[in-house]
Amino acid sequence: VIKTSSSAFLLDKGNHRHFMAKEIHEQPEVVAHTLSHYIDMAKESVVLPGELPFEWNKIERVSISACGTAYYAGLVAKYWFERYARLPVEIDVASEFRYREAPLRKGDLALFVSQSGETADTLASLRYAKEQGLHVLSVVNVQTSTIARESDVIMPTLAGPEIGVASTKAFTCQLSVLACLAIAAGRARGAISDAEERKLVRALIEVPRHMNETLTLEGDIEALARDLGKSSDVLYLGRGTSYPLALEGALKLKEISYIHAEGYAAGELKHGPIALIDETMPVIVTAPYDSVFEKTVSNMQEVAARGGRIILLTDSKGAAEATMPGVTIITLPDMPSSVTPLVYALPVQLLAYYTAVALGTDIDQPRNLAKSVTVE
Amino acid sequence: VIKTSSSAFLLDKGNHRHFMAKEIHEQPEVVAHTLSHYIDMAKESVVLPGELPFEWNKIERVSISACGTAYYAGLVAKYWFERYARLPVEIDVASEFRYREAPLRKGDLALFVSQSGETADTLASLRYAKEQGLHVLSVVNVQTSTIARESDVIMPTLAGPEIGVASTKAFTCQLSVLACLAIAAGRARGAISDAEERKLVRALIEVPRHMNETLTLEGDIEALARDLGKSSDVLYLGRGTSYPLALEGALKLKEISYIHAEGYAAGELKHGPIALIDETMPVIVTAPYDSVFEKTVSNMQEVAARGGRIILLTDSKGAAEATMPGVTIITLPDMPSSVTPLVYALPVQLLAYYTAVALGTDIDQPRNLAKSVTVE
Repeated sequence: VIKTSSSAFLLDKGNHRHFMAKEIHEQPEVVAHTLSHYIDMAKESVVLPGELPFEWNKIERVSISACGTAYYAGLVAKYWFERYARLPVEIDVASEFRYREAPLRKGDLALFVSQSGETADTLASLRYAKEQGLHVLSVVNVQTSTIARESDVIMPTLAGPEIGVASTKAFTCQLSVLACLAIAAGRARGAISDAEERKLVRALIEVPRHMNETLTLEGDIEALARDLGKSSDVLYLGRGTSYPLALEGALKLKEISYIHAEGYAAGELKHGPIALIDETMPVIVTAPYDSVFEKTVSNMQEVAARGGRIILLTDSKGAAEATMPGVTIITLPDMPSSVTPLVYALPVQLLAYYTAVALGTDIDQPRNLAKSVTVE
Repeated sequence: VIKTSSSAFLLDKGNHRHFMAKEIHEQPEVVAHTLSHYIDMAKESVVLPGELPFEWNKIERVSISACGTAYYAGLVAKYWFERYARLPVEIDVASEFRYREAPLRKGDLALFVSQSGETADTLASLRYAKEQGLHVLSVVNVQTSTIARESDVIMPTLAGPEIGVASTKAFTCQLSVLACLAIAAGRARGAISDAEERKLVRALIEVPRHMNETLTLEGDIEALARDLGKSSDVLYLGRGTSYPLALEGALKLKEISYIHAEGYAAGELKHGPIALIDETMPVIVTAPYDSVFEKTVSNMQEVAARGGRIILLTDSKGAAEATMPGVTIITLPDMPSSVTPLVYALPVQLLAYYTAVALGTDIDQPRNLAKSVTVE
């Protein structure tokens, strides 16, 4: 068991040059620790660490609000809640949710995600949702925070203190908690069977092992990043649950390398952004071999046909199928598609990290950014 | 009355250098024409041109799917349907909607937006929604198209043939139709009173006049665009219904000038992309003086504090309040905030158009793009 108090020895960079590198490498451990609080390992079943003040089958809709990286964790969760719990989810960046006068139903669930628990936009949205009579559940890393205090119930991430401004381990711990919540909702609503639950839980239990294996690709990613650092602009593409990963990958690059990276749903490429593609603009694609892989391949072919260079994050089956010219492949371990967002987060973080290292930016304190944004 | 058949004389550029310029300038006329098919001018009331195969108050949720510019029209409509009809709207890019196994309720409404009516991703989503037992309503410009034929009901835009690959007049005509639909839904659901309907309709009737007045700013916008053409990257910000406008503005710049422009919800700026801001990256802000204007001003101050240059599209009240350094202001006419997306579309289009003119790109046939995307 890992102590998660912010004791001095945890706030040390260890053998790493930056807190961000340390926090990327901590992920197998803190994700395992977080999962252990949400999963009965013997029964391969989700057991939430707190009583819920509502019943899942009385909820008609979930509204998720968050900012930045936490918003992308919420976007992955939208796919999971809809798929595993057949529960419609609406998701907003918190600064929009608060002001758009959305029609909300009393007794429905509002879900907030924040590492610090002090994000001003998220807090304002939480207070608005409470006024509207929604149940308020928050996924927070700091359990003594304002958002934690003002929520009806919290589901903590046990990531330990995150020091690097660019969020890494908090993100994968948020995904771990959100996956467990979606499974719990699916079971309570009768949308998944016991056997399906066990399968989903087993996949989660394997995540730390896949993460460790993925970290062995660090050298390859570092080599790729040296080249990426020469680009001023990058496109990041994905479909399904890999779409939020593409958005997160672009955000990480923006935050610490100051490269203008933009994430896009792969299917939207041909509806506009493909006009940007030439040999100077690398395209990074997150695409495990899943039900939408073939569609993503056809988008990659469009890029390749225009002379674009592609970096593909995929698995062994995906690597075997992606045979167009101009593709560099990083091959991750094979795993069930329910957990790819957790594991693919690591190469996405490492690509940004090593690009920033190559460029010599101030990685743990990037320009213009604060760790926790307490103004609206 | 304007003939909307694609007769030869309409397919001529007239006095314009490009079809895109002609189509931008046609907007006061085609928007007036479209509105005249949806509005009883004497009664200041919406009268839809076709019978609906469903009742608005039996609909619990609307799912909108579209691609590219039509998707941004749908995103504006989400705000309108939720505000005026208190009807929850979920919106997806069509390439995601089709594959994410969203929980849909039989008898709810699926709404599709497509200029050509042949967009493959949108068509695939339409067929999926039909299989799920949803009512299918489409907003299309080509009434003989596949999407039109396969819909339960169509609401046509009367934009006339759009030749330029970058959509302009189809967008504002889509917004016109969607605004009328939201008002009709609001009235049928008892969410707006007769007096509120009259007020909203009066605002729409005034749109062509505001558009004509806005077109007189063309010279100022052209001068600004010469400078914008020197930038390789641009950020476009907005809140509320101006957020989709920022996305559309960035898409237009991408499509025809090949500048890497990215649209962002203004409130999200400080959660990451602000790291990109320095004196070389212009920030364009669409911000009429509405209920979220003050919040957008504080985001502009964050940009100004980092030496960023700002182009602000606002009205006279907004111009009076935006007094931070480094701001160039384009002052549009004052108008009710319900219709700003329609009118602000024009300077957004003109900025992209004149930037592309300055750069000498092939405006009506930009590289890599097709007018109607008939592959997934």
